[in-house]
Order: sequence, then structure tokens, then C-alpha cells
Amino acid sequence: MRESGDAFHLAIPAHDLDEAEHFYVSLLGCKLARRYPDRITVDFFGDQVVCHLTEEPEARGGEGAGSNGDQTDDELQLYPRHFGVTFRHEVDFEALHELAVLRKIPFFRDMGTRFEGRAEVHQSFVLRDPTDNLLEFKHYRDPRMMY
Amino acid sequence: MRESGDAFHLAIPAHDLDEAEHFYVSLLGCKLARRYPDRITVDFFGDQVVCHLTEEPEARGGEGAGSNGDQTDDELQLYPRHFGVTFRHEVDFEALHELAVLRKIPFFRDMGTRFEGRAEVHQSFVLRDPTDNLLEFKHYRDPRMMY
Amino acid sequence: MRESGDAFHLAIPAHDLDEAEHFYVSLLGCKLARRYPDRITVDFFGDQVVCHLTEEPEARGGEGAGSNGDQTDDELQLYPRHFGVTFRHEVDFEALHELAVLRKIPFFRDMGTRFEGRAEVHQSFVLRDPTDNLLEFKHYRDPRMMY
Amino acid sequence: MRESGDAFHLAIPAHDLDEAEHFYVSLLGCKLARRYPDRITVDFFGDQVVCHLTEEPEARGGEGAGSNGDQTDDELQLYPRHFGVTFRHEVDFEALHELAVLRKIPFFRDMGTRFEGRAEVHQSFVLRDPTDNLLEFKHYRDPRMMY
Amino acid sequence: MRESGDAFHLAIPAHDLDEAEHFYVSLLGCKLARRYPDRITVDFFGDQVVCHLTEEPEARGGEGAGSNGDQTDDELQLYPRHFGVTFRHEVDFEALHELAVLRKIPFFRDMGTRFEGRAEVHQSFVLRDPTDNLLEFKHYRDPRMMY
Amino acid sequence: MRESGDAFHLAIPAHDLDEAEHFYVSLLGCKLARRYPDRITVDFFGDQVVCHLTEEPEARGGEGAGSNGDQTDDELQLYPRHFGVTFRHEVDFEALHELAVLRKIPFFRDMGTRFEGRAEVHQSFVLRDPTDNLLEFKHYRDPRMMY
Amino acid sequence: MRESGDAFHLAIPAHDLDEAEHFYVSLLGCKLARRYPDRITVDFFGDQVVCHLTEEPEARGGEGAGSNGDQTDDELQLYPRHFGVTFRHEVDFEALHELAVLRKIPFFRDMGTRFEGRAEVHQSFVLRDPTDNLLEFKHYRDPRMMY
Amino acid sequence: MRESGDAFHLAIPAHDLDEAEHFYVSLLGCKLARRYPDRITVDFFGDQVVCHLTEEPEARGGEGAGSNGDQTDDELQLYPRHFGVTFRHEVDFEALHELAVLRKIPFFRDMGTRFEGRAEVHQSFVLRDPTDNLLEFKHYRDPRMMY
Repeated sequence: MRESGDAFHLAIPAHDLDEAEHFYVSLLGCKLARRYPDRITVDFFGDQVVCHLTEEPEARGGEGAGSNGDQTDDELQLYPRHFGVTFRHEVDFEALHELAVLRKIPFFRDMGTRFEGRAEVHQSFVLRDPTDNLLEFKHYRDPRMMY
Repeated sequence: MRESGDAFHLAIPAHDLDEAEHFYVSLLGCKLARRYPDRITVDFFGDQVVCHLTEEPEARGGEGAGSNGDQTDDELQLYPRHFGVTFRHEVDFEALHELAVLRKIPFFRDMGTRFEGRAEVHQSFVLRDPTDNLLEFKHYRDPRMMY
Repeated sequence: MRESGDAFHLAIPAHDLDEAEHFYVSLLGCKLARRYPDRITVDFFGDQVVCHLTEEPEARGGEGAGSNGDQTDDELQLYPRHFGVTFRHEVDFEALHELAVLRKIPFFRDMGTRFEGRAEVHQSFVLRDPTDNLLEFKHYRDPRMMY
Repeated sequence: MRESGDAFHLAIPAHDLDEAEHFYVSLLGCKLARRYPDRITVDFFGDQVVCHLTEEPEARGGEGAGSNGDQTDDELQLYPRHFGVTFRHEVDFEALHELAVLRKIPFFRDMGTRFEGRAEVHQSFVLRDPTDNLLEFKHYRDPRMMY
Repeated sequence: MRESGDAFHLAIPAHDLDEAEHFYVSLLGCKLARRYPDRITVDFFGDQVVCHLTEEPEARGGEGAGSNGDQTDDELQLYPRHFGVTFRHEVDFEALHELAVLRKIPFFRDMGTRFEGRAEVHQSFVLRDPTDNLLEFKHYRDPRMMY
Repeated sequence: MRESGDAFHLAIPAHDLDEAEHFYVSLLGCKLARRYPDRITVDFFGDQVVCHLTEEPEARGGEGAGSNGDQTDDELQLYPRHFGVTFRHEVDFEALHELAVLRKIPFFRDMGTRFEGRAEVHQSFVLRDPTDNLLEFKHYRDPRMMY
Repeated sequence: MRESGDAFHLAIPAHDLDEAEHFYVSLLGCKLARRYPDRITVDFFGDQVVCHLTEEPEARGGEGAGSNGDQTDDELQLYPRHFGVTFRHEVDFEALHELAVLRKIPFFRDMGTRFEGRAEVHQSFVLRDPTDNLLEFKHYRDPRMMY
Repeated sequence: MRESGDAFHLAIPAHDLDEAEHFYVSLLGCKLARRYPDRITVDFFGDQVVCHLTEEPEARGGEGAGSNGDQTDDELQLYPRHFGVTFRHEVDFEALHELAVLRKIPFFRDMGTRFEGRAEVHQSFVLRDPTDNLLEFKHYRDPRMMY
């Protein structure tokens, strides 16, 4: 566990701050901590995510957007870049999935089980923000496997 | 604050897993949770960072490495992509800085104060991992500004 | 102490939601949880304050605004209605006062000491939001006197 | 969540301190922290509520009582002023409702579900104190919607 | 440490409930949880003390009061019966002592140091309630000696 | 709740320290913190109970033992003196009752429900130590009634 | 309970550090904190276990390995030396047992119940590391019996 | 950190249970949880240490005592077997050292600083129990190095 009081922070690109605020605050239910002309800061499940306005959106299909490079939209990939939350309690994980369904947040990959039959078995789903950053949420049956 | 027990997780690229393990575990003092042929997982200040082996290292000066694209090594930029920890207590922040100095971890930007005279005043320094991912560590004088 | 996890919530009037968001989020550093056409919800030092749009601002000097009735602006009174936070730690109290000074948040009453020489001795200052709601922040030398 | 140790405090009017003490302490089960000639202070679910004696009860139907102005008793409204607790755990919410029923505390609005089918779905009921202050108690199915 | 959430409870005699409430709530700063015709219940530093009305006050100098039997007032003894709080933090201990001095709470024994030069060294003072129950408050230099 | 880290302490008489240690440590499962010639100190559910050797056991039927005076053994009464623990969680309460049954700890009063149909409804049972000190253990259905 | 923040540490022998790392990190799911030529340090369920390379493996059947002396492999005994974790929550205990089964960690003694019908009733199983150190994991029905 | 509520447990040999109880409880200030004919269980800084009576004390100088084999008393070694506590807070570490000095607990190695000038710098001292088990207590300047 993390020292209580510290916060992880992650800076990611955003092509449009209004879209980013809509996605993170109005859809995903994060709290808006600050908004400046070039970025917004959100309390993302207790940690800090900063969306920095990237003035020239990288051309899709060209250099690529968000977490990827040199690929078409279809080629958007989960690796090597994504982020998210691993929930300790299944009820919190399921509440977030239900929220995403109710609010029609775009899924990159819907709920699924991975590594069935192994200690690392877990469920996950992946959301996609307007800048094509991918957000993975997970829950492990054995909490010791969270790392 | 984050719900206790949940963990933020971040996936980043690594060009060489041995180098990544050396940087995160032996230098930065994170704990190694797992190692697989294609990735290592570290307990990064209580959260999870996964270094995924990116088989074809992006050419430096070409598409760019780590958190940036299309730039030479000199052009490595902090925005829009970086991550790190915002410490609640100054003593923890300073201990990490001292660790970085003692172990000669490469700095991208040394300790400095930002926003002096404003409520957002904070100190920060930025480290650089072997794949050119940038890690920013911060401490705010007023903990309410952590977000 | 309160059961961890529960939140106090307070609903107050706001004559203008943009002004309210500016006051609570941009000046006071609270996080914006939600915004609807008729109200904004802020995470106010860990509790919830909801500013409800009161369509017809009560005429000042007439029925009165915010926490008072039937009085001119000069007559705005702290009693019987106001709200705020009693800080356990003086450093948090002072950080908020410094924030208010740095950001030029309007004071209704500046820092002062009350009940010197008694067990209830404490410091307090009172801020005023755009709808004339009064916010009192306090710190007691003896934390048992917080109630 | 709030910094542990801090307390929200709310000052409200009371037309009669004995009635207020009876309502908050004997009926609602709050603890009495202090009583002075002009106010009582109660530990209200871990936060502080101060009932200030308002010497001249505002005439009902005239300026109005408690949380409202210019209205008859029938017109007592929940908005824009009320306060209460949002419980994290349903069992605590239900225990309070049962207490209110057992002790015949006057309801302004009985238990009901709001926003069914949306992420913000929650249950609430509203009590009324002797000075017509309205107290709303809530429980959200998804705790992230508490704000 | 105790399981969080559990409470120690202690029932003691009181010859007069008004005097007991004055002593525990108005002087010592405990919160009044309930009052019935035959007892009062106070939140005593987080635990529960119940003062039961003992209808026939034991004659002082005869059978004795409070924690003792068969003795004159001068013979009131600390052993074998008394109760109180051992503070972990010296600042809390000193704040209570200052409260007792400011409010002129009767001391049975003023502040003193015991066992100087031994691991068990601690400071303590003893208060006396209106029924001659003795309350000892302590602070150990080494918190492991608290038991 | 109590400030974490502080401990309630209670001093009671014991006619025989070996019997007291057997009762509190071997039967009730408390931990022995210290033993001196004139007393034993036990960690009693996280708080401190000190059993002081009372050299001349008060004659039963005469001045009375433990928590009572002037009465025969049959007249041993719960009021005004007894102590114990109010458990937050029913499972802890029941585990202690089962322990008492399994280890044949003498009951003064077996498990029973009090105040059925009222908010204060709770279960309790009372044990009796070798010096006739009475120990009451309770569990309230509504944890807010613990005080 | 232990003071939060402190860590128990245990140093044990290891005949082969690669085998030890495989056992503790890859099989048992502990995190590797550090590796030096003569030892590895693991975060063992929140505490620290250090495996020191014992250069001359003690001959099995001769002086014995790990926690025992002068015995054949068949004679490996649980007493007087072993270590492990007593889980507070059964679900954590069972998750570890399932992990051990799934990953085929060698058992010294499989799951069993001890002291049925007594307050000390608990379940336990014992694992065996490559150096024949024995690891016992337990869960008590009554958490007060954990010690 | 360890999951709150779980306990590390360690079983070690003891040649004499009275000596062991004297050492762990009366000198070191641990609490005695249970005593059986063949072992004592102590709450060792929040974890469980069980001293098992080893009926035939291993001959000193022969097979060796406590944590070592085949050596004379002079050859008693810290590696590979010892245990202890790593304190998070220096004040707790120093309080234990002072306790050991005041109570003349036998030191195997007095207070010293190791790894000066490196991130792993820490202070430690080693005590010796009557069965020659070695207990090391440590404090790291940088708490992240505790593992």
C-alpha cells in the first residue's frame, strides 16, 4: 500500500480540455480540482491526473493519438501505455462498470476474465478517453496479486 | 484521498527489462512484484507500475523515446507525459531526493521551487528512466494544493 | 469524530453558479464534484456543499441575502447562520488563511483570538461568498474544545 | 474524504434551546457538547452543529422560519437550505431511519428513492427540527456519487 | 491497542446527577450522551462512563463515598479503585491539566512524576468528582509502558 | 470514538493476584502486561485494567466485596459499579460469549436482550471475577446507541 | 496489534538465493525489496524476511537444514523453529492456501483444524522453502486467540 | 505495510520458560498472551513470538544454542538467524534502547550506525535472550529502506 497522504500523479495529453473535463468529471465521476487555460487537474480515484492541452492533435493514422504512435485508429493498442485503478473490493469495481454502462462511456474492451485457473485471475475492462488514452480497471480475486 | 486498498496502475514502455529493473528496484528502491519475459511489475510508492518490453525501441531523434515523439534527445519534454508522486510530508520528499543524489540517478531537472508567492507553491525534481520516461516528484507547502 | 466514510452535506443558496464555482473551486481550492443547470456540488474540505441556484436573488437590504434576512449589507451577521471547518492542526488552519490572503478572498472578519485565558480559546476568521453566505474557519488550542 | 480530525461546523437558528436539545440529543441521539445561555453545541454524527437562540422567532408565514423565508408552514421547502449526512454504509442509514420511526421524530419527507436507473441513484428521507430546519439523510448505491 | 469501534464502559455511583453532569460535561469537557432519571451517560475521552444515581449517598466519614469505604474524607484513597486515561501524546495530557487548572476542577493530587530513572517513568495527576470518585490521568515517556 | 493511542485505565481490587491472573489472562484471554508483588496489569480488550491486591479482603456479607458494600453474596448488585466492553461488531461480542461458555467463566447474568422495540435495544451478559467485580459485555443493534 | 509503520524482520538461512527468490517471490507472491550477493530481502506479507546465503549448506541428514538440526529429512520438525502469518480474515487465509495449491508450493503439512471445541480452535497449513525453513499460516475463529 | 489485523508469528526455542518469560515480559516489556507447560506466547511489538520449551538444551560449544550451531559461546553469530523490529519512528527505537540500558538487558552488540553515506544508513543494536536467540532492532533514516 501507499503511504497515506501521498498521491500518484500522471500527466497525459488532451486535444480538447472541454472534452476531457466532460469525460473525466461528468462521465467518470472524478472531481475537478483545477482548470487552467492549458490543462485540467482531476482527482482520479484519489490520485491526480493532469490533462495537458496538446495544441496540435497528433494526426490519427499518422503519428497516432494518445497512448500510441504510428497506427490507425483500429490499431489503437493497450500496450505499452495505459493507466487505471486496481480495486481492492469487487463491489467498487462493479459499481464503476455499471456507471460506465449507464453513462455510455466508450469501451475499448468490455469486461472480461483473464488468467482463469491461475492465482493471477482477475477481471478487467478498458475505457477510452476522447484523446484515445486507455484506462484499464481491474479486480483480482486474490488481493495479493494486485501488483 | 484514494480509497484505502485500491491501487493506481500505470503501464509504460521499457526497451530493456534488466535496465528497467535496475532503475526501479536497485536505484529507486521500489519493490519488484513480478517479472515475466515481456514485463516487470513494481510496487512504485504503493502503486503499481508495469514496464512492458517494447520490442523495437523507438529510434531516438526519430519517433522519439519514452514520453515523447519526434524529437531529439535534447528535445525530451516533460509535457504532456510524465508521472510521479506528490508527497504529503516534506521529509519523505527530501529523503527521495537524497536517495537520487546518493545513488546518482539521472536527473532530467534538479530540485526547484515553482510558483513562489502563490498558494500553489511547490518544490519538484524530475528523474529520467532508461527508456526516457520522466518521473516527477513534488511537495506542496499547502497540502490542499496537491491536486 | 465522524464515522469514516460518511459525509456531512449542506445545501446553501447561490445567486450565480459561475460566481459560486469561482469562489469555491478557483479561490477556496475545493474540488468540483458535479455541475447541473440548477446547482453545483463541491467537495468542501471532505464534506459536501451544494450551491442551489436561487433564481431571484433576494434583494439586499430587503429580505436579505445568504445567511441573513431583513438587513442592509452592513448588517450582515454571523449569527445564527454560518458554516465552516474547525481544523485539528494549526498548520492546516494557517495554510487556509494564507491562501485566502494570497488569493484575495473577501473576509467578513479577519483572524482573531477569542476566549483568551479560557479553555475554549481559539482563533478564527470568517470569509464571505458571493451570495453572502458566511464561512467561519477555526482552530482550538485544546482539540477537545472543538465541539 | 475529509482530513481526519477536522470537523465541519454549522450554525443554525433555534427558537427554544430546550426543544433543540430534546430534538438533537434525546431524539436524534447526538451528544451534547456544551450548553450556554444563548446556544447549545452538539456532536452531530461527528461534526459540530451549534443551535443559536434566535430571540425573536421569525413569524411563520412572515419572514419564515428555519431554512426558508416568506412562506407559510405548508410552503416549507427543502431548497436552497438544508443539511444532513450522507452515509457510506446502508446499514447506518437504515439504523437512523429506524430510530426516527421508533422515536416518532417528525418527517418532512419519508424514505424514498431518487434517480432510479441512473448512477446517482440514492435513498433519502428528511427530518424537521422544532425550528423548521430540515435535515436530509442519504445513502448512494455507488459511494463515488456521494458528492 | 483496542479494536477500533469498541468502547470501554464503566459504571460508577453519583449522589447527584446535576452535580455529575456539571463535573463531567461542563468542567471536564466530556459530551453528554444521554440523561435518564436514574443516570447520565457521558462520552469520556471516547469511552463510556455511566453515573448511576445512588439514592442514599453513603455517609462521608461513615461507610465512605465513591471509591472507598469506611474512612473519613481525609482518608480518601487512590487504591484500589480509580479510573482515568493514559494519554499517548504529552500535548493531550498537558492540555487536560491546563483545562483542570483553568476551570478549577478539584485535584486530589496535583501533577507529579513517578518512577524517575526507570522505564516506567510517567507523570500523573488525580481529579476528584463530586461523589469522590477519583480520576487519574497519566502520560508515560515510553508509550510501551502504558500498560 | 477515543483518540487512537490513548488508553482507558481502571484500577480495581483483587483479593488474590494468582486468582486474578488466572481469571483475566487464562480464562478471559487478556494479555498480562506486568506483575508486581501488589498488583497485576492486564491489557483488557485494548485498555488497561490494574488489579490491586487488597490485603484484607472485605468480609462478604459485611462491608461487601468488589463492586458492592454491605450485602451478602446473594445481594451482589450490578449497580452502581461494574465495567466492561461495548462491542461494535456482533461477531466479536458472540465470540467472547462463546469463550466464556467454553471456558466455564462464571456468569453473574447470562445473555439477554434489553429494551426490545426501542432504539437502545442491545444484548448483554455479565461475568464475575474472583473478587466479585462484575464485567458487563454489550452489543447494540444501532452502534450510535453505544454511549 | 503492532504499531503501524514498524516492521517485524526475520533473518533465515538460504542455501541458494535463486531458489529462495523463486520460492518467495515467484511462488509465494512476496515482493523482492533488494538483492545483494549474499542475501535477498523480501516484503513478506508486510514484514521483512531476509534470506542470508549460508555458504556451506548444512548436510541434510547430518546437522540438518533450515530450522532443525541433527535429523534426516524425514525428521524435519515444526518445533521449535518456524514462522509465518496469522491472518485476521479467513478469506485471506484461504486465498493463500489456494495460491499454494495452484502453484504447487511444497506442503510440509496440509490444511487442518486444531483444538476443535476449544476457544483456541484454528486452521493451519505449513509450507516448506527450498532450505527447509517451515512456514506456518493460521486463521483463528476467534481473533482474540491470535496470540 | 502489512494488512492491518494480520500478525507475523515466529516460533523459537527456549531452554527455560521462566527465564524466557522474565526476558520477554519483565525486561523487554512484551505482554504475555498465554502460558502452557511447553511454551509461552508473547505479544512481541504487536506480533506473536512463541517460545517452545526445548527439552534438552543444546550443549553450548557443542551443537550450539539458539540461532546457531556448532560453535562456542564466543562464536555466537548474528547470521543467518535472528529477528527483531525495524521501527518507523526514531523515538520508538531510542525508547527501546533506553529501556534495555535501564533494565540491563544483555546486549550482543551495542548501538551502532551502519552504511553511513548510503541510502541504507541505519542504526541498530542486538540483544540476546537467555537461550541465545539474537534480537536486532533497527531504525532507518529513510523509511523506504526498511525492507
